[in-house]
This record gives sequence, C-alpha cells and structure tokens, in this order.
Amino acid sequence: MAARAGIRPSALRSPAEIPLRPGAAAPAEGALRTPRIPLIGGRPSVPGGFPAKAFSGEVVPFSVVAFREGHDIIGVHLRLTSPDGEESLHRLTPRKDGTDTWSVDIELGAQGRWMYRFEAFADDYATWAHAAELKVAAGVDVPVMAALGAELLTRAAAEKDRPAAQRKRLLADAAALAPGAAATTIALATDAELARIFADRPVVSLQSSTAAQSLIVERTAAGVGAWYEFFPRSEGARRLKNGTVKSGTFRTAAKRLPAVAAMGFDVLYIVPIHPIGTTNRKGRNNTLVTEPGDPGSPYAIGAAEGGHDAIHPDLGTAQDFRAFVRAAQGEGLEVALDLALQASPDHPWVTEHPEWFTTLPDGSIAFAENPPKKYQDIYPINFDNDPAGIYAEVLRIVRHWVAQGVKIFRVDNPHTKPLQFWEWLIATINHEDPDVIFLAEAFTRPAVMRALAAVGFQQSYSYFTWRNTKAELEEFLTSVSHETSDYMRPNLFVNTHDILTEYLQFGGRAAYRIRACIAATAAPVYGVYAGYELFENVARPGSEENNDNEKYEYKFRDWEGEEERGDSLAPLLRRLNEIRQQHPALRQLRNFSAHWSDDDQVLVYSKHLDAAFTGSGDDDTIIVVANVDPHSVRETTVHLDTTVWGVPLGDTFDVEDLLTGAHWTWSDHNYVRLDAFTEPVHILKVRKRA
Amino acid sequence: MAARAGIRPSALRSPAEIPLRPGAAAPAEGALRTPRIPLIGGRPSVPGGFPAKAFSGEVVPFSVVAFREGHDIIGVHLRLTSPDGEESLHRLTPRKDGTDTWSVDIELGAQGRWMYRFEAFADDYATWAHAAELKVAAGVDVPVMAALGAELLTRAAAEKDRPAAQRKRLLADAAALAPGAAATTIALATDAELARIFADRPVVSLQSSTAAQSLIVERTAAGVGAWYEFFPRSEGARRLKNGTVKSGTFRTAAKRLPAVAAMGFDVLYIVPIHPIGTTNRKGRNNTLVTEPGDPGSPYAIGAAEGGHDAIHPDLGTAQDFRAFVRAAQGEGLEVALDLALQASPDHPWVTEHPEWFTTLPDGSIAFAENPPKKYQDIYPINFDNDPAGIYAEVLRIVRHWVAQGVKIFRVDNPHTKPLQFWEWLIATINHEDPDVIFLAEAFTRPAVMRALAAVGFQQSYSYFTWRNTKAELEEFLTSVSHETSDYMRPNLFVNTHDILTEYLQFGGRAAYRIRACIAATAAPVYGVYAGYELFENVARPGSEENNDNEKYEYKFRDWEGEEERGDSLAPLLRRLNEIRQQHPALRQLRNFSAHWSDDDQVLVYSKHLDAAFTGSGDDDTIIVVANVDPHSVRETTVHLDTTVWGVPLGDTFDVEDLLTGAHWTWSDHNYVRLDAFTEPVHILKVRKRA
Repeated sequence: MAARAGIRPSALRSPAEIPLRPGAAAPAEGALRTPRIPLIGGRPSVPGGFPAKAFSGEVVPFSVVAFREGHDIIGVHLRLTSPDGEESLHRLTPRKDGTDTWSVDIELGAQGRWMYRFEAFADDYATWAHAAELKVAAGVDVPVMAALGAELLTRAAAEKDRPAAQRKRLLADAAALAPGAAATTIALATDAELARIFADRPVVSLQSSTAAQSLIVERTAAGVGAWYEFFPRSEGARRLKNGTVKSGTFRTAAKRLPAVAAMGFDVLYIVPIHPIGTTNRKGRNNTLVTEPGDPGSPYAIGAAEGGHDAIHPDLGTAQDFRAFVRAAQGEGLEVALDLALQASPDHPWVTEHPEWFTTLPDGSIAFAENPPKKYQDIYPINFDNDPAGIYAEVLRIVRHWVAQGVKIFRVDNPHTKPLQFWEWLIATINHEDPDVIFLAEAFTRPAVMRALAAVGFQQSYSYFTWRNTKAELEEFLTSVSHETSDYMRPNLFVNTHDILTEYLQFGGRAAYRIRACIAATAAPVYGVYAGYELFENVARPGSEENNDNEKYEYKFRDWEGEEERGDSLAPLLRRLNEIRQQHPALRQLRNFSAHWSDDDQVLVYSKHLDAAFTGSGDDDTIIVVANVDPHSVRETTVHLDTTVWGVPLGDTFDVEDLLTGAHWTWSDHNYVRLDAFTEPVHILKVRKRA
Repeated sequence: MAARAGIRPSALRSPAEIPLRPGAAAPAEGALRTPRIPLIGGRPSVPGGFPAKAFSGEVVPFSVVAFREGHDIIGVHLRLTSPDGEESLHRLTPRKDGTDTWSVDIELGAQGRWMYRFEAFADDYATWAHAAELKVAAGVDVPVMAALGAELLTRAAAEKDRPAAQRKRLLADAAALAPGAAATTIALATDAELARIFADRPVVSLQSSTAAQSLIVERTAAGVGAWYEFFPRSEGARRLKNGTVKSGTFRTAAKRLPAVAAMGFDVLYIVPIHPIGTTNRKGRNNTLVTEPGDPGSPYAIGAAEGGHDAIHPDLGTAQDFRAFVRAAQGEGLEVALDLALQASPDHPWVTEHPEWFTTLPDGSIAFAENPPKKYQDIYPINFDNDPAGIYAEVLRIVRHWVAQGVKIFRVDNPHTKPLQFWEWLIATINHEDPDVIFLAEAFTRPAVMRALAAVGFQQSYSYFTWRNTKAELEEFLTSVSHETSDYMRPNLFVNTHDILTEYLQFGGRAAYRIRACIAATAAPVYGVYAGYELFENVARPGSEENNDNEKYEYKFRDWEGEEERGDSLAPLLRRLNEIRQQHPALRQLRNFSAHWSDDDQVLVYSKHLDAAFTGSGDDDTIIVVANVDPHSVRETTVHLDTTVWGVPLGDTFDVEDLLTGAHWTWSDHNYVRLDAFTEPVHILKVRKRA
C-alpha cells in the first residue's frame, strides 16, 4: 500500500512522530501515551509524584477515569501488590455522576510500600449480554446474537485457568445457543450464575494498563489518634513558701498520666525537654526581662548542660525520661517529643559548630529575626553552610530519641527549614524505622503546608483552629477529607500553647464544647492542649495567645477540684474519646460527607463506614449536627443525603444521640433544636431498620 | 562523626533511602524530588503529560508555585527555548493571593515545539536591601548591614559577564559602604539604578530548577477564527419546473463566498463532499424511506463513484473543488473539510477491505447501532481488526485532502473512535505539516472531551450551545478560559446542522442576537451554521434538531432579500466580526474575567489585553454586558473589578458601546438597562483617561 511507505522510518523518529508497528497491529508498542482503553488520572496520588500515603486500617478509595469509544461495555481492575509482593485484583465500579470515574474502596493492612495500577478491558460478555437482551427481545438479529454468544462462551471455555466444571458448563451453554433460539439467548444473557462467573473472571479484550504507582501504608497512629499536650514542668510544680517554684519533673508529671489516659487519649505530646538557655531568656508573657525563677521558653534550646540530646536537669535524668515513657506506655499513651531545630546562644553547637549558624561580618552570630524585629533568645540554623554536617547531626538526634523509645515527633515550625531537608530526613528515618511519625507544625500558607505533607510529614496541624463558621468548616473538612487526603492528614488541635482563637476567647464554655465535639468526630486525629478542659480563655490583649503563656512560666491547675465542681470539660472529652473508640467510622479520614441545614450556623456532616470494613458485620454511621454559634439556641431542619449510608431518600431510620442517649426516628428531613448553653451538638448513631 | 557512618551506603539504596553526598553538601544530587527552593506544579501543563498548546500570537500565563523557608526573598525565572533553539529568560512576579504562585505573561510567536522550565533563586540583593532599609532606619545592626552590602556588591562586581561599567560602579558602591555609614547604606538599599541592575541580572544563590516541559505553538488559526458552515449542494440549488431539484455545485456555491467573506468570517466549513450511498439512504427528516430526488445524508459516505477521497459527482470534479478552495482563499476564507470516518454500505472499502468493519457470524457486516436501534445507512469502522491497514488508509485520505489545499478538518464524532488513533493520526500529520488543524465534534462527556483535546485536537466543539443562563455561562466561560486552556480550545458554535437548542427555538430573534454577541466576544473561535442569520428556529418536534434538516434535503434561502427586508442577522454578524478584527483582546482565550451584576440574568465579563501585546501601544479592554433573558427588559447595576484593566476601584473611565456608538462615563458600579427586544447586549470599549 502506497500510504504505508509514506510513514517515516523509525530512524527519523521524534516525539511528534509515531510509527506504526510493522506488520499487524498499530501503533508501535509504547509509542503512544494513550492506552487502547484510556485510563486517566488514577488516585490516590500526590502532586509532584511523591508516593501517596495511607495508614494501616484506612479504607482508601482507588479511582481512575476510564472510558472507551462507542457503546461497548468496559471493566476496570485495580492490581494491588502488597509490601511482601502478594498481588490482588479488585473490580472497580463506575460512579453515577457522568465523570467516567471508576472506583473501589480497599482497606489497606500491612505497613510498607504498596504498588498499584489500573487495568481496563473490553468486557465482552457484558457487552454481548446487554445487546442480546435488548435486541432479541425486540426481535432484532436473533440468530446472530445467539451465534455471537456461542462464540464468546466457547472462547471463555478455552481459557485453561478456569475451573474444569466451569469450562464444561460454558461449553454446554455455547452448544445450547447454537440452534439460535431466542428464549435460550435471552436466558443466557440474563443468567445470574453466568453473570457471577464473568464478574469474577471476565472474558476480556483490548487490555490496557496504567503505569505502577506507589503508596506507603504507615502504622495506624500516623492517621488515628487523640492527642493531649502538656508541659512536664508544670505537672507537679509546687510554689514554695519562699515564693519560688519547684519545677515539676518526669516523676511528678508521671502522676498525671493515669488521668490523661482515663480521658481516653492515645498520644501525649510534651514540649521540648532540653536544657534552656539563660542568655536573653524571655520572661513572663514574652517579655525581654526575666525575673529570678522564670524558667524560660523550652524552645530556647541548649545550655551548658547540653543541647537537643540532653534533658533539662529540672526534669530529671535520661533514666527518669525513659521511665516516664514506659509509664505512659503502661497507661496506653505514646509519648510525642518536640523537634525544634533552633538553638539558644548557650547551645553547645554555637561553640562547637558555629558553621551551622550565620556569622555576620562583625563576628557575631545572627539572631532569629523578622526585620527589624529580633528574637534574641534564639539562633536559627543555617542549613546551607555545612548541610552534610547539620543533616547528620539532626539525624543523630532523632535516632537518639528513637533509641529512648520515642517514635512520634511534633516538628516545630518546619516551614522555616528547607523543604528538601525534611524530604531527606523523613525518608532516611522511615527507611530504618517506618514506625516513626512526624507531625508538622505548619501554620503557614496553603502551598507550603501541602508541600510539607507531600514530601513526607505524616500529620499536619491544620487551619482547623481558624475555621469556625459553618461555611468555613464545611469547606475545610470537605477539602482535607477528599482533596488532599492522599498525602495530608490534618491533626485537628482545638488549641495549642500558642493559639487561643477569638472564637474560644469570646465563645464561653459552649465554644469549648462545640469545638471539642467537632474535632473529635470530623477527622481521625485531633488534639487538645492542657487547660482546654478548664476553659482557659484569657488571651494576652490583642493576641491570639494565652495570657500568662505556659511557655514562660509554670502553671498550677486543680484538675480534680475543677471536675468535682463541674467546671471541667474532662467528662465530655472522656465520652468523645469513648465514642471514637466504639465507632470505626470516626477513625477514618476520607469518609466525611457534608449535609444541608436551613440554618447558616448549623453544621451537619456524616461519617460512614461500610459493614465490609467495620469488623462488626454492621455499617457504622455517625451523623453530627452542631450549632456553631456559641451564643444562641437554634431550631432548624436538617436535610440528609441518606443514600450515603444506603437508606433510600424518604425512608425512616432510628438515631441515638451518643451524648445524651436520646432516641429519635429520622428520615431525610428532620427538625433539630440545639441550645448552645446546654446541648449544642448531636452525635447520632444511625440504626437502620431490618 | 559517628552519625555519618550510620548513613547507609549507596549500594543498598532504595527509593526510601537517600544518601548524603560524600564530602561537603548534602544530599546527593538528584536523589531528592524537592529542589533547594521548591518549585511546584508549573503551568501551562496538560493532565497525562501531553505537551501544552498555544497558538502563534497567544499571550500565555506561565506560572509556578515557589517559596522558601524563612523571610529571605526569592526570585523566579522562566527559561524559554524557542523552536529554533533561542533561549530567553523572563522574570516572574508573585501573585498577591496567598497561593505562592508566581507568573509572567508571554506572547508566543514562532510555530513549533518550545521548551520551558522554571528556575528559582535566593535574590541576595533584594533580601539585603529589604533588611538594610528596615534595620538601618531602626538603628539596628548598622555596621553589619553596611558590611554585608559591601560583601554582596563586591561579589556581584566579580561576575565577569556584567558590563565593565556596571562592575566598576558596583565596586565603587562597595567601597562607599565600607565606612559603615547609615545614610550610605539606606541610599544604596533604595537606589533605583541598583534595583534595575539587579532586576535585570540578580545576584543569586541556591539556584533551583524544574524539569523542562514542552509546549507546542500552533498557527494562529488553531486558536482564532470566525467559522461559517454551509452545505455546498444547497448553495445554488434550483427547483426545476418538473419539481425536481438541481443540486448546487462547487461553481454555484462559490458565488456565495463573497457574501460569507463580507460578513467577516475566516473559515468556511463544508459538510462531507463525497459520494453518498444509496443503500438504505435516509429520506427527509431522517425517515427510512426516500422519495425520488432525496439527496441523502452526506455522512453516509461512499458509493460506486468512490469513498473518502472522491467527490460527489453532483458537486463537480476534483478540479472544481480545487478552484472552490482557491476562490475561498481569494476571499480570505480557509476551507475546512469534514472527516467522518464511517461508510455507507456502498463504500468501496466494504468490498475491498471488509476487515475494516465487523463481520457477523451470518456473514453480514454490522450496521451502526445503539441496541436495539440500528442505523442502516452506515457501517462503523472496526479499528481493531486491522489497525495498521485502517490507520494507514485514514492517513492517506487526510494527506490526499491536504494535497488538495485543505488544512482544517472538522472531525465527526471523534469519541466513537479509539482515542489512541487520534493521538497517532494528529501527531503523524502535524509532524509532516504542523499547519493542519483538527476540530473535534466531541459532544460527549467532559472526561472524553478533555481527553480528545489533550491527545492533540486543536479545537473542540464545546458545551456552549447548552450553556444559556448567566450562572451556566459564567462557570463555563471561566472554566474553558482558565482551567483547561492549556490544551482545550472551545469553538463556540451558536448552532450546527444537528443542534437547534430550546433557547433558540423559543427565544425569538433576541435569543439569536444574544448568543451571537456572546459567542463572538467570549472566546477567540466561534462559529455559525448557515440559516442562523435568518432566525431558522423550527425544530423537528421533540428534538433539538432543525425540522426539515438540511442533512436530508436541499435548502433554498433568500439571503439578500431577507437582509433587504431587515429580517437578517447578517449586519450584526458583520459588525461582530469587524469588532473582533479591531480588538486584539477578543482574539485571546485566557484573558476572560467574569464580573458581577445584581440581576441573575445579566451576564458581565471583560476581555483585557495589556498594551505590551496589542501592537497599538494601548491597552485593549472590552466589557460585555448581556441580558441573557430573551423575553424581558432588565435594569440593574453591574459591579466591575476595574483593577483587571489597571483602573483603581472608584476611579471613572469612558466606555463606548461598539454596537450603538453610545458613550458613557463608568466606574466600578454602573447602572445598565438592556432591552432584549432592541438592544440586549452592550459591547463596551474602555477608554482610560490620561
């Protein structure tokens, strides 16, 4: 054929010129980006090509856009390879939203690097059955459809890896079709057992595949946990008769562990425990002048007693620390340590490795600054003077604490260090110990926060504290649950030692209740900084920070007394953590759905987990209805898309309020009354009727 | 150092383990995904990694997310390589929206494959100047800042490729800084000429780069054009005395060319011109029975006289066709041909290459169908039986018509053929002739439409015909102008021979005016099917198709008489095309901005092109205000973000209505009155005051 000669020889190939494969089929293998059946944009995936993340026990939707020309039916498989090399095949189903997206939910178990790819194929039996049913019923092409069916079943029967009995059955069916009877053809096109046989193992052609992508499954604590933060030095601190304070120690702080554990928390995060510099030490409320006995900010790390691998002598010894970690473990609490990469002027690094800082022309070392402001108690690290040296030192420090039993690090201000440093550090540490978890304190711009998550951080503080209205929360929770959930896991801290939002300052006790209920149920990881349960809501004027911030002084709190007086949120926190324990739907990130209410202050969402994944054999569905206005009583109607949990619109079902024990019969439209002052939030368990 | 020894040797490297580079700097080159200064998600880019597209003369925003840790200032460059290998460097500026996105607008000229990458760097002069200005003014670190400045300017002066005079100046400035005077330091930190010197050629460190990406610049007609469609056989068709019709020919159709050209159209698209099958030929209004003289659908391609490379004898000879193409060229019209890959049962392929179709068990060839419906005048091509054969045949046909002078193809139903076939065909044709343009008639689901554009189609019919409300149009036009504009160019056809929307059927003449104004101004390519200007609005009952569809019969239209009677839209189309010619802002895709109005039927948008790109030395700014309700008079206030065209909010400016000549003084809030029956749309030219 003349035309063929015109196709240029492959010697001249350029990206824009794609040769036909010589001989039968076109085009040349691998020359085109598009597979025979297009497969586009598989998820989970991460911008920049980093591996996607999941946690052990997480139910992950795998999805891909797939379609083909014309009306023939396709099928799509997920081919999954576990860290130990075991392969499994999972059938995807098309979403009914016109986007050509196919998906399947998979619960990932084993920790480690999984590989996956999507495979599409022409589903030849489904295409035949669909056409045969319609055409034969309409009297069109009756013998032809029978003959095509016979051909197809004969082909299927020839596939040697089908069970012998099945192959025999398929051959018999093919023979039955041969005479071309309409009734037989319709019967076999609608036969339930044939449908099952071919659902399990379809008769395929035009097989197509994506490239393999990787997905790191981390341990469950990377994605699920209730965090509690305290300052060890405050726990057991005593004011002496002479007016000075005796610091709490690991031994005294350990006495607080049973109460924290009893509230149901999983992780205890403690601020830096290292020696604190004395040069330019900050006083109360971040003042530049200290008074005798001011303990200094634990973030001004390093003194004559040592640096990031040392323990503040006031807190105890390395042995005391290990005992504290063990005591916490004994209570079911895992200790998370702060990793704050900066130094006080008294840090041993300053004399031993001045090259890890920036030396100015006058020979001094540059303080941290935001010109013209200076932070004279802290030297920032310069990662570019001696990267090999400082990288190795940080690695040594992290390894040191891992060796002391710490496997979770809350990283202070990661966005002020090079992003590539974190990529390197986390990959290197996780390669030797995949159990180590890093939480990014990335209160920064969205692109930076997401990039930190993409390069490896297992968790991220998020904008949750500043998302307080219904509209803000809906948008935020939807985004973190779906848009970025392949790589970023928000840890919904209600407050921190640095953040006391206006909502909490001015929202009264209702605000504390509302935020705790939402944080504990909207995402699988959340956190509370000590004092939240005592409604500590006085800010330093003009700031979003606690007045008399614990960073600069000891705090004395009467945990038990306040609870006895009914002035503590501890019972609610206890109940919330209990509910989280009992409801696996609350221990997933990607199953959040926003629903509607007529009131712009009444937030409604559900968390649903299918029976296949709950372990109990039953679906687990929680509906949360929250009045986010802490100053009012709200009555409104909530409108639910009940199909999310498999209840047809209009059908009724029972709900139980897990906070009050109340029961109601609900449907897709329901009246609610939420009094901010007594009961601002419903947490409802759905009980479907038989 | 002990820690260093712990880093595993590269022999054991795995994806999760990244070694330090031995010696000075860490980590090992290329081992990390993250450059020292992160650069994320550069655009233009296309899902699936296909090259991005632009047209010659298009102004393309290049953008990338870039940031670094801390407060130091960065800069970002675009390094662009033209098809002939010439490299240029362009400085990006940060958008002020908190997204860390940097961008620069570039007008791309030469056709061909461009390469580009983004480079980020620490902008050491900018960082110093910013800090010096603030700190020295505050009396902080005065000598240190002077010394740092001297060091920096000395370093810059040592860069051998700076002009000698500049190096001399920099050395002098460095010397001036040496004494450490505050005034000198502030003066040099704020010196305009130094700022210019370092804007042109910054003093850089920490240089970082993305990988190179490619971008195909196509000829201008790929992205800009006013299209007109007609059926050649109707132009000059005559009803004879015996009641039969004498078909129009290329010669008679050529007589219509001056009128089409006079309306200002650039492209004349003609439906298939090939012999039409007689077997199962369709009659009027798609009926199964023909009457004598019914010409048949031009999409039932192929008869005894030939197939896709032949010309219908009624229309003339190959020579007549070439003469028609030349006559059109003479009028400034480029002819676009239909590429409809299907065959009538009488096509020569059917006997010569039955392997290009699907043969059923009974030996017959399968008709096109949507079970149980059949389309008995058409055989669909089977691309899988003999791909090499059919691929080569289509290539031969396209080459044949290219040789006849046709460089634009309107592709019929591309979504019913394999996507990878189009990737191959378009790449192969464009490799030998980059001027060839393919328009996808992809009236299908969004994922499929986008995929066709991504694999190579230069233009796409779009959902425009079905986007008629203000909300729909705002969303649609914003999406096509920004979201998908790196690869998909919508051709806003107001109607086609297959589509007569309800909006046109029931909207009266106002609907025709409104849609023409929006199509001609909202995007740089738009189209009209003959008869639109005569308000042909009678549909076959229950369908969105013209009654007495021209596909099945000849049409006789009195173009001149209707215009003389004032019953033609031709004058408006003429004016719209004139406005498009005079306003380069209307010949761009990516410069669309939606604005606000208080009326949910009054659509407001602007198209702005900066003076740097207009050629006239002045900005070109057009504001369109359209009452999209064809049944009412609307009075409302429009609210404009005038900063889009550089006018501060609140400032006034003059506008001229290009349809009526009216002048007004406008600001950011303006009263409008739009009467659907007389003047439904303002097309306003902004004239800024000096």
